[in-house]
Amino acid sequence: MPFTKAASDEKAIATIRCLAADVVAKSNSGHPGAPMGMAPMAHTLFSRFMNVNPAHSKWVNRDRFVLSNGHACALIYILNHLLGYKDMPMEQLKNFRQLDSKTPGHPETGHTEGIEVTTGPLGQGFANAVGLAIAQANLAATFNKDDFPLFTNHTFMFTGDGCLQEGISSEAASLAGHLKLGNLIALYDDNHISIDGDTACSFTEDVEQRFLSYDWHVSHVLDGDKDLEGLYKAIEEAKAVTDKPSLIRVKTTIGFGSKQQGLAATHGAPLKADDIEGVKQKFGMDPKEAFVVPEDVRAAYKEIADRGAEADAKWTELFKAYGDKYPQEHAEIARRIAGKLPEGWEKALPTYQPSDAAVASRKLSETVLGKVADAVPELLGGSADLTGSNLTRWGNAVDFQHPASQLGDYSGKYIRYGVREHAMGAIMNGLAAYGMHIPTAGTFLNFVSYAIGAVRLSALSGHRVIWVATHDSIGLGEDGPTHQPIETAIALRAIPNLMFWRPADGNEVSGAYLVALQSKSTPSVLALSRQNLPQLEGSSIEKTTKGGYVVVENSSADITLVASGSEVALCNEAAAKLGEKGIKVRVVSMPCFSVFDAQPIDYRLSVLPSGKPILSVEAYSRLGWAKYSHAQHGIDTFGASAPAGELFKKFKMTGADVAAKAEHVVKVFQGQTLVSPIELEAQLQKY
Amino acid sequence: MPFTKAASDEKAIATIRCLAADVVAKSNSGHPGAPMGMAPMAHTLFSRFMNVNPAHSKWVNRDRFVLSNGHACALIYILNHLLGYKDMPMEQLKNFRQLDSKTPGHPETGHTEGIEVTTGPLGQGFANAVGLAIAQANLAATFNKDDFPLFTNHTFMFTGDGCLQEGISSEAASLAGHLKLGNLIALYDDNHISIDGDTACSFTEDVEQRFLSYDWHVSHVLDGDKDLEGLYKAIEEAKAVTDKPSLIRVKTTIGFGSKQQGLAATHGAPLKADDIEGVKQKFGMDPKEAFVVPEDVRAAYKEIADRGAEADAKWTELFKAYGDKYPQEHAEIARRIAGKLPEGWEKALPTYQPSDAAVASRKLSETVLGKVADAVPELLGGSADLTGSNLTRWGNAVDFQHPASQLGDYSGKYIRYGVREHAMGAIMNGLAAYGMHIPTAGTFLNFVSYAIGAVRLSALSGHRVIWVATHDSIGLGEDGPTHQPIETAIALRAIPNLMFWRPADGNEVSGAYLVALQSKSTPSVLALSRQNLPQLEGSSIEKTTKGGYVVVENSSADITLVASGSEVALCNEAAAKLGEKGIKVRVVSMPCFSVFDAQPIDYRLSVLPSGKPILSVEAYSRLGWAKYSHAQHGIDTFGASAPAGELFKKFKMTGADVAAKAEHVVKVFQGQTLVSPIELEAQLQKY
Repeated sequence: MPFTKAASDEKAIATIRCLAADVVAKSNSGHPGAPMGMAPMAHTLFSRFMNVNPAHSKWVNRDRFVLSNGHACALIYILNHLLGYKDMPMEQLKNFRQLDSKTPGHPETGHTEGIEVTTGPLGQGFANAVGLAIAQANLAATFNKDDFPLFTNHTFMFTGDGCLQEGISSEAASLAGHLKLGNLIALYDDNHISIDGDTACSFTEDVEQRFLSYDWHVSHVLDGDKDLEGLYKAIEEAKAVTDKPSLIRVKTTIGFGSKQQGLAATHGAPLKADDIEGVKQKFGMDPKEAFVVPEDVRAAYKEIADRGAEADAKWTELFKAYGDKYPQEHAEIARRIAGKLPEGWEKALPTYQPSDAAVASRKLSETVLGKVADAVPELLGGSADLTGSNLTRWGNAVDFQHPASQLGDYSGKYIRYGVREHAMGAIMNGLAAYGMHIPTAGTFLNFVSYAIGAVRLSALSGHRVIWVATHDSIGLGEDGPTHQPIETAIALRAIPNLMFWRPADGNEVSGAYLVALQSKSTPSVLALSRQNLPQLEGSSIEKTTKGGYVVVENSSADITLVASGSEVALCNEAAAKLGEKGIKVRVVSMPCFSVFDAQPIDYRLSVLPSGKPILSVEAYSRLGWAKYSHAQHGIDTFGASAPAGELFKKFKMTGADVAAKAEHVVKVFQGQTLVSPIELEAQLQKY
Repeated sequence: MPFTKAASDEKAIATIRCLAADVVAKSNSGHPGAPMGMAPMAHTLFSRFMNVNPAHSKWVNRDRFVLSNGHACALIYILNHLLGYKDMPMEQLKNFRQLDSKTPGHPETGHTEGIEVTTGPLGQGFANAVGLAIAQANLAATFNKDDFPLFTNHTFMFTGDGCLQEGISSEAASLAGHLKLGNLIALYDDNHISIDGDTACSFTEDVEQRFLSYDWHVSHVLDGDKDLEGLYKAIEEAKAVTDKPSLIRVKTTIGFGSKQQGLAATHGAPLKADDIEGVKQKFGMDPKEAFVVPEDVRAAYKEIADRGAEADAKWTELFKAYGDKYPQEHAEIARRIAGKLPEGWEKALPTYQPSDAAVASRKLSETVLGKVADAVPELLGGSADLTGSNLTRWGNAVDFQHPASQLGDYSGKYIRYGVREHAMGAIMNGLAAYGMHIPTAGTFLNFVSYAIGAVRLSALSGHRVIWVATHDSIGLGEDGPTHQPIETAIALRAIPNLMFWRPADGNEVSGAYLVALQSKSTPSVLALSRQNLPQLEGSSIEKTTKGGYVVVENSSADITLVASGSEVALCNEAAAKLGEKGIKVRVVSMPCFSVFDAQPIDYRLSVLPSGKPILSVEAYSRLGWAKYSHAQHGIDTFGASAPAGELFKKFKMTGADVAAKAEHVVKVFQGQTLVSPIELEAQLQKY
C-alpha cells in the first residue's frame, strides 16, 4: 500500500514530543531525548502497522511491541495513553516515576497494561523480542491451517545504541538471523548519542554491516526526524521479507526540537522550562500549556485502537470457526490462552523407591522432560550448546529450525541456542511473555551466571521459565574451578521470586518440576548433578513441594544435619557412621530455600527445632546457611580440577568428613541448649 | 621475511597432535579434538613469531598468548612442555586434570607458568586479550622513546566458535576495532564443530563480515590442517597492519588424524585406543608408544626458547641503557614490574570529620580517584558509558583512544568502554594480567551482574581490579527495580577471594580504596551510593581496614545494630531515638564481610558479642546476615520506582523503622541471653 499522509500526523508527532518533555519535567527525572527523537518512528509504526486492542490487551494475536531502550519509556506510556489503555489516564503520565504509579522508571510487564516485556537493562528487550518472534513462528507452524491464519502477528522492536553495544543483542541477533525470523522487525534509533556523549567515543562499528553478517534484511531511513514516508516504506519492505529478520537503521536527532537537540544533555535529564516552551512553540503547541492532546490527535489514536479492536473481533470469529473444524487444536489453544496446564499432567512425573538405582539428577531430569513433554505440549526446550551434557532433549523432540535448514522446522520444540546463555535467558523471557509456552533450557549451573541479567528479569517479570542447570558443584570434576559453581547457589537463592532447586534424588527432581511447572509467575533454576545420586529412603514428591523436610527423624537426636542435593546422601552416610558411635542424628533435606521459607512457621520449626545443634552441609559457599543452622560445613574457596571422587575428599565432603564434623559439633555444644534460628524467627513473629 | 619450511615442522605438528591424544586418553577426560586441529597454527605461531622466555616467564615485553577456547588446554600444556617450562615436565602431561597437577582442566594463570590468563568460560580469553593489548599500547605510548622501543610485544589469541558466539566477544571485538589495536592478532579455529554438532545447527553468521563491521583486518587460511606457509603469511600480514586488530579465520579439521576427524565425537571425549594408534601410524609415529617427543622436535623447540631468552637479554640491556637516559621513567617501570605501589601513596587518601558535609559515596570515590590517580600512575580508569553517573573520570584524565580519533591518545588512562560491562570486566582482567596496571572501572552495581562471569575469574585468577559500582541499593530511586540491586550484595560476598565493600562514609571509602589497592591478588567491588551520606562519628580509615568495627560502643547495650553503607547512619538515627526511650544501643559498621571474617576471632567477638540480640540492617536481601545476627532487617523483594526518600519509607528503611524493629527485637528477647553466631564459631574453633 502506498503511503498516504494524514492531516494529524505532524500534530500527533508534536504531541508525543511535547508530552515526553512534559512527563520528564513534571517528575524531574527521566529521559526526554530518546522519546522525542523516536516520536516519528513510533507514530508511523503505531498508526500504520500495529494491531493491538487496548480494551483487550492480552489478545493473543496482537502485534508485539518491545521498547528495548526501556529508559525511553515515556514514549510507550504516552502511546498507551493516546491509545486509551484504561490504566494509563493522563494522571499516570503526571505521576511518572512516582511511588505506586503505572509509569515506573523503566517499563515493567505485569505492572502496566500493554507492556509486553520488562526492559531497561540494556539489550534484554532485543533478545526478548527474538523470543516473542520464536513463539509466534512456533504457534503458526503448529496451529495455523489453510484458511485459518490464527497466529500471524509481528514483533516490532525499538533499540538504541546501548542495546546494540551489549553482547546479549549480538547473541540474540545472530540466532535470529540463523532462524530466519521474518516476523521480527527492529527499528534502530541511531541518534549517535549515549551517556558519555557522541558514540564516536566508543561505538564506531558499522551496524548495518554487522547485521548483514547475521543474515538480516537491513535498510535505513536517513531522516528519521521527518521522513514519515521513508519510515513507512522501510517497515512495509521489512514486512515483505518473510525469511529474514529486519533491521531498519533510523537516523534521528535526540531531543528533537530542544535547544540542546542532538546533545547528550537531553538524554537523561529533564529539559529546562524555557526550552520546553520553545519546543512547544516550534511545534505549534501552546507554550504555556502542559500535558495537552489535541482533539484530532486523540481521534486519530482512537481510530488505531478501533482498528485493533476490529482485528481482535475478526480473529475471535476466525478462532470460533477454527474450533468447528479443528476442535482438538481449538481446545488446546484455548487451554493455553487460559494459562491452564493439561488435566492430570502431573501423573507423568516418575517416582522412585530407595531400591532403585542411583542416577545422576541431570539424567533424572531428562526422564522427567521426556515424560512431561508429551503431557505438557507447551514445553519448549533447548540448551546453550550442551545438549548431550544437559540432557535437555527428549526422545521424540524436533528442532525448532527454519525448514530451509533441513534440520527441523518451526513446529519443533527444541531450540539450539548456541553458546549464548545470556540471550537464551532473555529469549526464554520473551517466549514466556508471549503467553503460550513454558520455556526450559540448559547450561552448566556455573554459566547461568552469564545470564543472570536475564534471570533476575524473569523473576521481576514473573515469567515461568525453567533452567536445567546441570554440572552442579565440584561434582562436575575434571573441568575444574572455572566451571565449578561455589557462590552460585546463594546468588540465585537471593533473587526475589526465584526458586533455586537442588534436588537430592529422583523424587525430589520430580517434585521440583511439579512446583516449577505449577508456579505460573515464578522462574526456577534446577541445579542438577553430573554424578549419580542414590534414591533416598523417606523422600517423596509431596514432601519436596514443601521446600524442606525431615528425611530421617529421631526424637532423641543429638544433632540435626541439614543439606541439599548430593550432600543429603552424605548426611545419611554420616548418620549411619555416627549411629555406630551412639550419636543420634536427624537428617533434613532442603531442596529449595524460598519454598521452605513460605511454609507456616510451625512446620519450619518442626523441621529445624531448637535444643540440639544444627549443622548444614553443602558443597557450596557456606554463606546463607546460618539462617537454618548453628554451624556450617561447605566450600568457601574455589574448587579444583580432578575426578569428582577425589574432589569430594579434598574438600572434606565425604560421609566420614561430615560425621567427623558433626561429632565435633556435638562435643563442643554438649550440655548447651541451642536455639534454632527458626525459633528466633518464630518468637519475633509471635509478638 | 618469506616462509622457509623446516625439516622438523611436520614432525613437530604430529608430535603435538599425538601428545594431545595421549594426554586426554591417559586422564580419560578432556578435549583432544581442538588441540589436534589447532596444532599447525600453534606450531607456526610459536616457531616463527612468539617471543617468550620459558626460563623467565614473567619477562615484561614477552608476546602474550591467550587460548580463549581454554578447553583445548592440552595444546598449551604441550607447547609449554616442548618449550621447557620448568613446571611442565612430561609427568605433568601425564597428570592432566588430576588433583594438584599443573595441568588443570582449563588453564589457570598463577597456577601454571606461562599461562597468561584463566580461560575456559567461553569468550573470556577473547576479551582478556583486548585488555593485554590495551596494556601494551598504553605502556608503549607512555614509556617508549626514540631508539628505546621497550614495549613492543604482540598479543596472539586463539578462539573457537564457542567464544565467538558469546556476547562478550562481540563487545570486546567492537571496542578493539574502535581502539584500532594493531598489536592484537586473533586466530579463529573455524572447525565447524561445537558440542551440539555441526555449527550449522546454531551458528551460521558470516564471521569475516562481522569482524569487518568492527573495523578489523580480516583474512583466512582455507587449509589450516596443512598450509603452514599460508598460516605464516597470514600472521606476517596481520603484524604489518598496525592500525587494526586482525582476525585470521583458519579452517581446520577437529581431531585431525582421527577416524572421527571432523566430528563432534572428538570434541569432548578421549579417542579410543585403536583410533590413537591409527593417528600415530598416519603421522609416522610409533603406534605403540605414548608421550613421545622426537629429539629433533625437542631441539626445534629449544631453539624457540633460546630465541626468547636472547630477546629477553637484549631487552634487559635496552632497559638498562634506557635507565641511563631516562632514570625517572626507568625507576617507574622497575617499580611497576616489581609490583610495588609508590612510596607513601596512601597519604593521598582523604579523611573526614563528622562535621564535614554529607556526600554521596560515589562522589567520595571520585575524590579518592582524583587524588590517587596522580599518586598511583598505574591506575587505568573507565566506565561502561556511565562516566557522569559513576564519577570515575578524574580531573586531568586523558582518554585512552587511538590518536587518529582526536579524542585522546594511547597514553590516556581513561577508557570509554561503551555499554559493555562483561567485556569491561574481562578486559580489566587482561589489563591486570599484563602486570603493569591497576584497572578500575564503573557501572551501576546492578549491572556488575552482567559481568559476573568475568568478576569470578578476577577472583579465581587473583587480579587486582576495582569495580566502582555506583547506584547502590534502592537509594538510586526513580530508575526503579530493573536497576536496583537486591541480591547483588550477597552474590558478590559469596565469591571467594573477592572483597565486596559497602562503605558508609568518607573515611570508609578511603579505607576501602586503601585495602583494595594494597591487595595485590584480590579484586574489589565498591558499592557506592547515589544519595548523600553523613560523615560518621567514630569511623576511620584504620577501622575500616578491619572490615567491621564498632561505631557506637555501649557496655550496657540492650541490642547491637549491625549495618553497612547508607544504613549505618540509619542505625545511628535509630540509636538516638531508642536512647530517648531508655534502650541502649551499640552500632557496628560492616563494610566488608570477607575482610572482617579474616580478623582474629577475639576481635570479631568483641565487635559482635553474645548476651543481647544483634539486629542486622541493610537495604538488600537479608540472606547472609544470619551469620552475624539474630534478626535481620532488609528487603527481600524487588524495589520500586520513586524518589529515593519515598522508597526508604516504603521499604521501612528509615531511622524510625529501624528503631521500631529494634525495640520489638529487644522486647521479644527480653531476659534471654542470646549467643552470638560468632561465639558459636569461637567455641567450634577452640576445641
